[in-house]
Amino acid sequence: MIVRNLNAIRKTDRNVRSDGWASARMLLKDDGMGFSFHITTMFAGSELKMHYQNHLEAVFVLKGTGTIEDLATGKVHKLEPGVLYALNEHDRHIVRPETDILTACAFNPPVTGKEVHDASGAYPADAELVREPAPAD
Amino acid sequence: MIVRNLNAIRKTDRNVRSDGWASARMLLKDDGMGFSFHITTMFAGSELKMHYQNHLEAVFVLKGTGTIEDLATGKVHKLEPGVLYALNEHDRHIVRPETDILTACAFNPPVTGKEVHDASGAYPADAELVREPAPAD
Repeated sequence: MIVRNLNAIRKTDRNVRSDGWASARMLLKDDGMGFSFHITTMFAGSELKMHYQNHLEAVFVLKGTGTIEDLATGKVHKLEPGVLYALNEHDRHIVRPETDILTACAFNPPVTGKEVHDASGAYPADAELVREPAPAD
Repeated sequence: MIVRNLNAIRKTDRNVRSDGWASARMLLKDDGMGFSFHITTMFAGSELKMHYQNHLEAVFVLKGTGTIEDLATGKVHKLEPGVLYALNEHDRHIVRPETDILTACAFNPPVTGKEVHDASGAYPADAELVREPAPAD
Protein backbone atom coordinates (compact mmCIF):
# COMPACT_ATOMS: atom_id res chain seq x y z
CA MET A 1 0.00 0.00 0.00
CA ILE A 2 1.26 3.43 -0.95
CA VAL A 3 0.14 6.39 1.19
CA ARG A 4 1.20 9.92 0.21
CA ASN A 5 0.27 13.46 1.15
CA LEU A 6 -0.13 16.29 -1.36
CA ASN A 7 1.59 18.82 0.90
CA ALA A 8 4.64 16.57 1.20
CA ILE A 9 4.76 15.89 -2.56
CA ARG A 10 4.69 19.64 -3.21
CA LYS A 11 8.07 19.95 -1.44
CA THR A 12 9.78 17.33 -3.62
CA ASP A 13 10.91 17.02 -7.22
CA ARG A 14 7.58 15.31 -7.91
CA ASN A 15 6.12 18.84 -7.95
CA VAL A 16 6.76 20.29 -11.40
CA ARG A 17 6.19 23.92 -12.35
CA SER A 18 6.23 25.37 -15.82
CA ASP A 19 4.70 28.17 -17.83
CA GLY A 20 1.09 28.53 -16.73
CA TRP A 21 0.79 25.37 -14.63
CA ALA A 22 2.14 23.32 -11.73
CA SER A 23 1.62 19.60 -11.14
CA ALA A 24 2.12 17.38 -8.10
CA ARG A 25 2.69 13.82 -9.26
CA MET A 26 1.04 11.67 -6.61
CA LEU A 27 1.65 8.47 -8.61
CA LEU A 28 4.13 7.94 -11.46
CA LYS A 29 4.95 5.04 -13.75
CA ASP A 30 7.35 3.42 -11.30
CA ASP A 31 4.55 3.03 -8.77
CA GLY A 32 3.25 0.25 -10.99
CA MET A 33 -0.43 1.23 -11.07
CA GLY A 34 -0.66 1.35 -14.88
CA PHE A 35 -1.69 5.01 -14.74
CA SER A 36 -0.25 8.14 -13.17
CA PHE A 37 -2.26 10.43 -10.91
CA HIS A 38 -1.55 14.14 -10.56
CA ILE A 39 -2.95 17.16 -8.78
CA THR A 40 -2.47 19.96 -11.28
CA THR A 41 -3.10 23.69 -11.12
CA MET A 42 -3.58 25.77 -14.26
CA PHE A 43 -3.02 29.44 -13.56
CA ALA A 44 -5.52 32.25 -14.12
CA GLY A 45 -5.02 34.13 -17.37
CA SER A 46 -3.00 31.42 -19.10
CA GLU A 47 -3.82 30.10 -22.55
CA LEU A 48 -2.71 26.49 -22.61
CA LYS A 49 -2.71 24.89 -26.06
CA MET A 50 -2.08 21.16 -25.90
CA HIS A 51 -1.95 18.00 -27.93
CA TYR A 52 -0.88 14.80 -26.22
CA GLN A 53 -0.12 12.43 -29.03
CA ASN A 54 1.05 9.62 -26.78
CA HIS A 55 -1.22 9.81 -23.76
CA LEU A 56 -4.89 9.57 -22.86
CA GLU A 57 -5.78 11.94 -20.05
CA ALA A 58 -8.77 12.54 -17.78
CA VAL A 59 -9.06 15.82 -15.85
CA PHE A 60 -11.57 16.42 -13.04
CA VAL A 61 -12.03 20.04 -11.93
CA LEU A 62 -11.90 20.49 -8.14
CA LYS A 63 -11.78 24.29 -7.90
CA GLY A 64 -11.85 27.27 -10.24
CA THR A 65 -13.43 28.18 -13.55
CA GLY A 66 -12.46 28.61 -17.19
CA THR A 67 -13.08 27.02 -20.56
CA ILE A 68 -11.74 24.25 -22.76
CA GLU A 69 -11.90 24.55 -26.55
CA ASP A 70 -11.96 21.39 -28.63
CA LEU A 71 -9.90 22.34 -31.67
CA ALA A 72 -11.40 19.54 -33.79
CA THR A 73 -14.92 20.95 -33.50
CA GLY A 74 -14.42 24.51 -32.25
CA LYS A 75 -16.78 23.75 -29.39
CA VAL A 76 -16.06 25.55 -26.10
CA HIS A 77 -17.00 23.85 -22.81
CA LYS A 78 -17.30 25.56 -19.44
CA LEU A 79 -14.91 24.32 -16.75
CA GLU A 80 -16.09 24.50 -13.13
CA PRO A 81 -15.99 22.21 -10.09
CA GLY A 82 -17.52 18.83 -10.91
CA VAL A 83 -16.69 18.89 -14.63
CA LEU A 84 -14.52 16.12 -16.07
CA TYR A 85 -12.96 16.17 -19.50
CA ALA A 86 -11.28 13.17 -21.07
CA LEU A 87 -8.95 13.37 -24.06
CA ASN A 88 -9.99 9.98 -25.40
CA GLU A 89 -8.95 10.78 -28.96
CA HIS A 90 -5.69 12.63 -28.19
CA ASP A 91 -7.78 15.73 -28.73
CA ARG A 92 -6.04 18.99 -29.61
CA HIS A 93 -7.38 21.58 -27.18
CA ILE A 94 -6.90 24.93 -25.47
CA VAL A 95 -7.63 25.52 -21.77
CA ARG A 96 -8.25 29.11 -20.73
CA PRO A 97 -8.41 29.41 -16.92
CA GLU A 98 -10.37 32.44 -15.70
CA THR A 99 -9.24 31.71 -12.13
CA ASP A 100 -6.61 29.24 -10.99
CA ILE A 101 -8.07 25.81 -11.75
CA LEU A 102 -7.21 22.91 -9.43
CA THR A 103 -7.66 19.46 -10.96
CA ALA A 104 -7.17 15.75 -10.32
CA CYS A 105 -5.79 14.01 -13.40
CA ALA A 106 -5.07 10.46 -14.54
CA PHE A 107 -2.78 9.55 -17.44
CA ASN A 108 -2.54 6.38 -19.49
CA PRO A 109 0.18 5.38 -20.10
CA PRO A 110 1.57 6.72 -16.84
CA VAL A 111 3.93 9.68 -16.89
CA THR A 112 7.45 8.71 -15.85
CA GLY A 113 8.34 12.06 -14.29
CA LYS A 114 11.49 12.17 -16.43
CA GLU A 115 9.90 13.78 -19.46
CA VAL A 116 11.83 17.03 -18.93
CA HIS A 117 15.06 16.39 -17.10
CA ASP A 118 17.51 13.63 -17.95
CA ALA A 119 19.26 11.50 -15.35
CA SER A 120 22.07 14.00 -14.90
CA GLY A 121 19.64 16.82 -14.16
CA ALA A 122 20.71 18.58 -17.35
CA TYR A 123 18.31 19.80 -20.00
CA PRO A 124 18.65 17.42 -22.92
CA ALA A 125 18.96 18.72 -26.47
CA ASP A 126 15.67 19.50 -28.13
CA ALA A 127 16.00 16.56 -30.46
CA GLU A 128 16.14 14.22 -27.50
CA LEU A 129 13.50 15.96 -25.43
CA VAL A 130 10.47 13.88 -24.67
CA ARG A 131 7.67 16.40 -24.41
CA GLU A 132 6.46 17.03 -20.90
CA PRO A 133 2.77 16.14 -20.61
CA ALA A 134 1.40 19.45 -19.51
CA PRO A 135 -0.35 21.31 -18.10
CA ALA A 136 -3.37 19.32 -17.07
CA ASP A 137 -1.26 16.39 -15.99
CA MET B 1 -13.35 14.58 -26.24
CA ILE B 2 -15.64 13.51 -23.44
CA VAL B 3 -17.06 16.23 -21.15
CA ARG B 4 -19.25 15.21 -18.18
CA ASN B 5 -20.63 16.86 -15.08
CA LEU B 6 -20.74 15.18 -11.67
CA ASN B 7 -24.19 16.56 -10.86
CA ALA B 8 -25.59 15.08 -14.08
CA ILE B 9 -23.90 11.70 -13.49
CA ARG B 10 -25.44 11.55 -10.02
CA LYS B 11 -28.90 11.47 -11.62
CA THR B 12 -28.12 8.46 -13.83
CA ASP B 13 -27.46 4.75 -13.37
CA ARG B 14 -23.77 5.61 -13.35
CA ASN B 15 -24.33 6.67 -9.73
CA VAL B 16 -24.22 3.52 -7.60
CA ARG B 17 -25.20 3.36 -3.93
CA SER B 18 -24.57 0.48 -1.58
CA ASP B 19 -23.98 -0.21 2.08
CA GLY B 20 -21.77 2.58 3.42
CA TRP B 21 -20.81 4.20 0.14
CA ALA B 22 -21.96 5.82 -3.10
CA SER B 23 -19.97 6.20 -6.30
CA ALA B 24 -20.43 8.36 -9.39
CA ARG B 25 -18.69 6.71 -12.32
CA MET B 26 -17.35 9.58 -14.40
CA LEU B 27 -15.50 7.21 -16.76
CA LEU B 28 -16.07 3.48 -17.25
CA LYS B 29 -14.41 0.79 -19.34
CA ASP B 30 -16.44 1.55 -22.45
CA ASP B 31 -15.01 5.09 -22.53
CA GLY B 32 -11.78 3.50 -23.71
CA MET B 33 -9.37 5.34 -21.42
CA GLY B 34 -7.77 2.19 -19.99
CA PHE B 35 -8.82 3.19 -16.48
CA SER B 36 -12.09 4.17 -14.83
CA PHE B 37 -12.52 7.35 -12.81
CA HIS B 38 -15.04 7.69 -9.99
CA ILE B 39 -16.12 10.25 -7.42
CA THR B 40 -16.90 8.13 -4.38
CA THR B 41 -18.30 8.98 -0.96
CA MET B 42 -17.74 6.71 2.04
CA PHE B 43 -20.25 7.42 4.78
CA ALA B 44 -19.47 8.45 8.34
CA GLY B 45 -19.52 5.59 10.83
CA SER B 46 -19.11 2.81 8.28
CA GLU B 47 -16.47 0.11 8.55
CA LEU B 48 -15.54 -0.86 5.03
CA LYS B 49 -13.42 -4.00 4.74
CA MET B 50 -12.15 -4.56 1.24
CA HIS B 51 -9.91 -6.73 -0.88
CA TYR B 52 -9.83 -6.10 -4.61
CA GLN B 53 -8.19 -9.15 -6.06
CA ASN B 54 -8.59 -8.09 -9.67
CA HIS B 55 -8.07 -4.34 -9.61
CA LEU B 56 -5.45 -1.77 -8.69
CA GLU B 57 -7.00 1.34 -7.20
CA ALA B 58 -5.83 4.84 -6.27
CA VAL B 59 -7.94 6.99 -3.94
CA PHE B 60 -7.37 10.71 -3.37
CA VAL B 61 -9.22 12.28 -0.43
CA LEU B 62 -11.00 15.54 -1.31
CA LYS B 63 -13.05 16.08 1.86
CA GLY B 64 -13.53 14.42 5.23
CA THR B 65 -11.49 12.40 7.69
CA GLY B 66 -11.06 8.84 8.85
CA THR B 67 -8.50 6.06 8.82
CA ILE B 68 -7.32 3.21 6.62
CA GLU B 69 -5.88 0.06 8.16
CA ASP B 70 -3.48 -2.05 6.12
CA LEU B 71 -4.39 -5.59 7.14
CA ALA B 72 -1.05 -6.98 5.97
CA THR B 73 0.90 -4.85 8.44
CA GLY B 74 -1.71 -3.64 10.95
CA LYS B 75 -0.59 -0.08 10.26
CA VAL B 76 -3.30 2.60 10.47
CA HIS B 77 -3.00 5.72 8.31
CA LYS B 78 -4.91 8.94 8.82
CA LEU B 79 -7.20 9.98 5.94
CA GLU B 80 -7.76 13.69 5.38
CA PRO B 81 -7.90 16.03 2.39
CA GLY B 82 -4.72 15.74 0.32
CA VAL B 83 -3.97 12.11 1.26
CA LEU B 84 -3.75 9.52 -1.51
CA TYR B 85 -3.66 5.79 -0.96
CA ALA B 86 -2.90 3.29 -3.69
CA LEU B 87 -3.66 -0.42 -3.44
CA ASN B 88 -0.67 -1.41 -5.54
CA GLU B 89 -0.51 -4.93 -4.12
CA HIS B 90 -4.26 -5.67 -4.02
CA ASP B 91 -3.95 -4.78 -0.34
CA ARG B 92 -6.56 -6.05 2.08
CA HIS B 93 -7.72 -3.03 4.06
CA ILE B 94 -10.41 -1.42 6.21
CA VAL B 95 -11.54 2.19 5.80
CA ARG B 96 -13.24 3.77 8.81
CA PRO B 97 -14.74 7.18 7.91
CA GLU B 98 -15.17 9.49 10.88
CA THR B 99 -17.05 11.94 8.67
CA ASP B 100 -18.34 11.38 5.15
CA ILE B 101 -15.21 11.09 2.99
CA LEU B 102 -15.35 12.37 -0.60
CA THR B 103 -12.72 10.91 -2.92
CA ALA B 104 -11.52 10.85 -6.52
CA CYS B 105 -10.56 7.31 -7.56
CA ALA B 106 -8.94 5.60 -10.53
CA PHE B 107 -9.16 1.86 -11.26
CA ASN B 108 -6.99 -0.35 -13.45
CA PRO B 109 -8.40 -2.34 -15.16
CA PRO B 110 -11.39 -0.05 -15.58
CA VAL B 111 -14.67 -0.94 -13.90
CA THR B 112 -17.35 -1.88 -16.43
CA GLY B 113 -20.27 -0.64 -14.34
CA LYS B 114 -21.93 -4.04 -14.69
CA GLU B 115 -20.27 -5.69 -11.72
CA VAL B 116 -23.49 -5.87 -9.70
CA HIS B 117 -26.48 -6.17 -11.99
CA ASP B 118 -26.77 -8.55 -14.90
CA ALA B 119 -28.27 -7.60 -18.26
CA SER B 120 -31.80 -8.40 -17.11
CA GLY B 121 -31.51 -6.12 -14.12
CA ALA B 122 -31.78 -9.13 -11.80
CA TYR B 123 -29.35 -9.92 -9.03
CA PRO B 124 -27.32 -12.89 -10.23
CA ALA B 125 -26.69 -15.91 -8.04
CA ASP B 126 -23.76 -15.53 -5.69
CA ALA B 127 -21.73 -18.03 -7.64
CA GLU B 128 -22.01 -15.85 -10.73
CA LEU B 129 -21.67 -12.52 -9.01
CA VAL B 130 -18.68 -10.52 -10.07
CA ARG B 131 -17.84 -8.57 -6.97
CA GLU B 132 -18.62 -4.90 -7.14
CA PRO B 133 -15.45 -2.89 -6.63
CA ALA B 134 -16.48 -0.90 -3.61
CA PRO B 135 -16.55 1.37 -1.76
CA ALA B 136 -13.60 3.49 -2.72
CA ASP B 137 -14.23 3.05 -6.37
